[in-house]
Amino acid sequence: MDAAKAVIARPPGSADRLMRLAARDMAGVDELIVERLQSPVSVIPALAEHLIDAGGKRLRPLLTVAAARLAGGQGEAGLKLAAAVEFIHTATLLHDDVVDGSRLRRGKVAAHLIWGAPSSVLVGDFLFARAFELMVETGILRALEILARASRVIAEGEVLQLSRAHDIDLSQATYLEIITAKTAELFAAAAEAGAVSAGASPARSAALRAYGRNLGLAFQLADDALDYGGATETLGKNAGDDFREGKVTLPLLLAITRLGTRESGFWERAVARREQTDADFRRARELVVGAGALEATLDLAGDHAEAAKAELAGFAPGPWRDGLEALADFAVSRRA
Amino acid sequence: MDAAKAVIARPPGSADRLMRLAARDMAGVDELIVERLQSPVSVIPALAEHLIDAGGKRLRPLLTVAAARLAGGQGEAGLKLAAAVEFIHTATLLHDDVVDGSRLRRGKVAAHLIWGAPSSVLVGDFLFARAFELMVETGILRALEILARASRVIAEGEVLQLSRAHDIDLSQATYLEIITAKTAELFAAAAEAGAVSAGASPARSAALRAYGRNLGLAFQLADDALDYGGATETLGKNAGDDFREGKVTLPLLLAITRLGTRESGFWERAVARREQTDADFRRARELVVGAGALEATLDLAGDHAEAAKAELAGFAPGPWRDGLEALADFAVSRRA
Repeated sequence: MDAAKAVIARPPGSADRLMRLAARDMAGVDELIVERLQSPVSVIPALAEHLIDAGGKRLRPLLTVAAARLAGGQGEAGLKLAAAVEFIHTATLLHDDVVDGSRLRRGKVAAHLIWGAPSSVLVGDFLFARAFELMVETGILRALEILARASRVIAEGEVLQLSRAHDIDLSQATYLEIITAKTAELFAAAAEAGAVSAGASPARSAALRAYGRNLGLAFQLADDALDYGGATETLGKNAGDDFREGKVTLPLLLAITRLGTRESGFWERAVARREQTDADFRRARELVVGAGALEATLDLAGDHAEAAKAELAGFAPGPWRDGLEALADFAVSRRA
Repeated sequence: MDAAKAVIARPPGSADRLMRLAARDMAGVDELIVERLQSPVSVIPALAEHLIDAGGKRLRPLLTVAAARLAGGQGEAGLKLAAAVEFIHTATLLHDDVVDGSRLRRGKVAAHLIWGAPSSVLVGDFLFARAFELMVETGILRALEILARASRVIAEGEVLQLSRAHDIDLSQATYLEIITAKTAELFAAAAEAGAVSAGASPARSAALRAYGRNLGLAFQLADDALDYGGATETLGKNAGDDFREGKVTLPLLLAITRLGTRESGFWERAVARREQTDADFRRARELVVGAGALEATLDLAGDHAEAAKAELAGFAPGPWRDGLEALADFAVSRRA
């Protein structure tokens, strides 16, 4: 199958190397996270821990820590900014799940189904405010500027996405605008804030920002591709969630465009109106793979991973740079 | 009627004097507000303007501007912080209305009923992030610290309130804790941030913070009293909304405590279970007024207004101080 080949042809990559290198820093970030989500109002840590303990890869704070290290930093400020980044991310997940009515998050029942949507909204607000308290403690105004802007851009991206939900006429440009705002902006800001905390030059900070942005795009595009994962057995992920929710992502958009009017009735019914049968996802996947849309999406993800790596060229070779390169490859080669 | 007498016996006060004094500054704040709620995502300004155009008194930014002026400031920073304060306030209103399922806000249909709860949540996030962008522009870290903390405390207060909704066994202490966090904290932070923007000494900043905190408590307590407004014709407000929503406020709590077990079946049914008939509010109001709970609440509001004014004693007499004193009196004497 083309899609499987496309995956296999890429360098495998890994997040492990960077995670091992950053293990001590990330333990410090974890301590800050646990400490700062405490509150005398007991619902707050209970709800927040439900989501934060569920793990996830903590890629965004890892990026802050690694960018700070690559830029020669080793202070407490980088750890605080990393914890703040994770809080901002967690706040957006809580609000996202309310907005989308999602039932699962990180393999667990979504918080709003346990504590109610109102609590999820308000605990998201708490985490967002806590993130800013942490940032203020660093005293690094430029980092505050970067992360305040990112928070605003994410909200804009979410509203844009919401206003175009189930829109099968979405342009590729608007789709890329949405994922750049929703996903890539926080990756970019996480890396840039780390660089800034280490006192990196504007040029180096900008390079790490561009690295983060491209990494975020690679991750998101690969995620979108995995949902149509060619063969579930090859890609190791429960496929089809995006399609069943009527989410319009690049593989689908490319298939819609490439197949023209031939399948427009099918997309109209299954995506725009979300009137689906069990067999529809299999058909959609066949159309997406057959049109080469899965491969094209993975190719674009691969291009962004390469662009991310290229941004590291100006930094001295060494384990941190190697780790960030391997992370970029991992974004596209990972199977879940 | 006792309640009406209690109102009439107080100095009338007014927000007008301060509003006139601050008119030019507030025009600058308005300009910033209009400018900064723009976004290429058109739903955002549409939804935000719906709420912000609806007016409200803009008391919180007025407080920031007036505190800055009283402390001798006259820069752009105070205006930016004032706009940020209004954005934070608006964000909490948007999220509050989703959380409470409110149908009206400032006399207009609540935004979430027009644009949907998801948009209200996300536009609230946008405004919150925009507030931080504005604060960062001032470069005043101490102001960022004050307002980040306030945002966190507000969220804690909201969650606490949510977890104790319709709880007729709520203690007076917990009720005061909730309104201190939900309402008074932003008044306190608004005034303190204004003082800090003017380079006020720590003692003067603390005095203005205490002024704001007491003013906020006076306003909230008077609001809670107005809902049981003695006679609607005297107090000029549609009474009963809190009661009908089963909101447990001080007048109700005091009546519950003072009347003991005699009326416990009524409170249990009408407030805890919210099984109400049209006649219930009239009965509740009679009980609240009869128990002296309305007057006691207004007295407590009056105490906080006096405490607010006392905090101004260390400042040179003049129009700004006079205006802030009149505003404190207005908090309790106003009729809507």
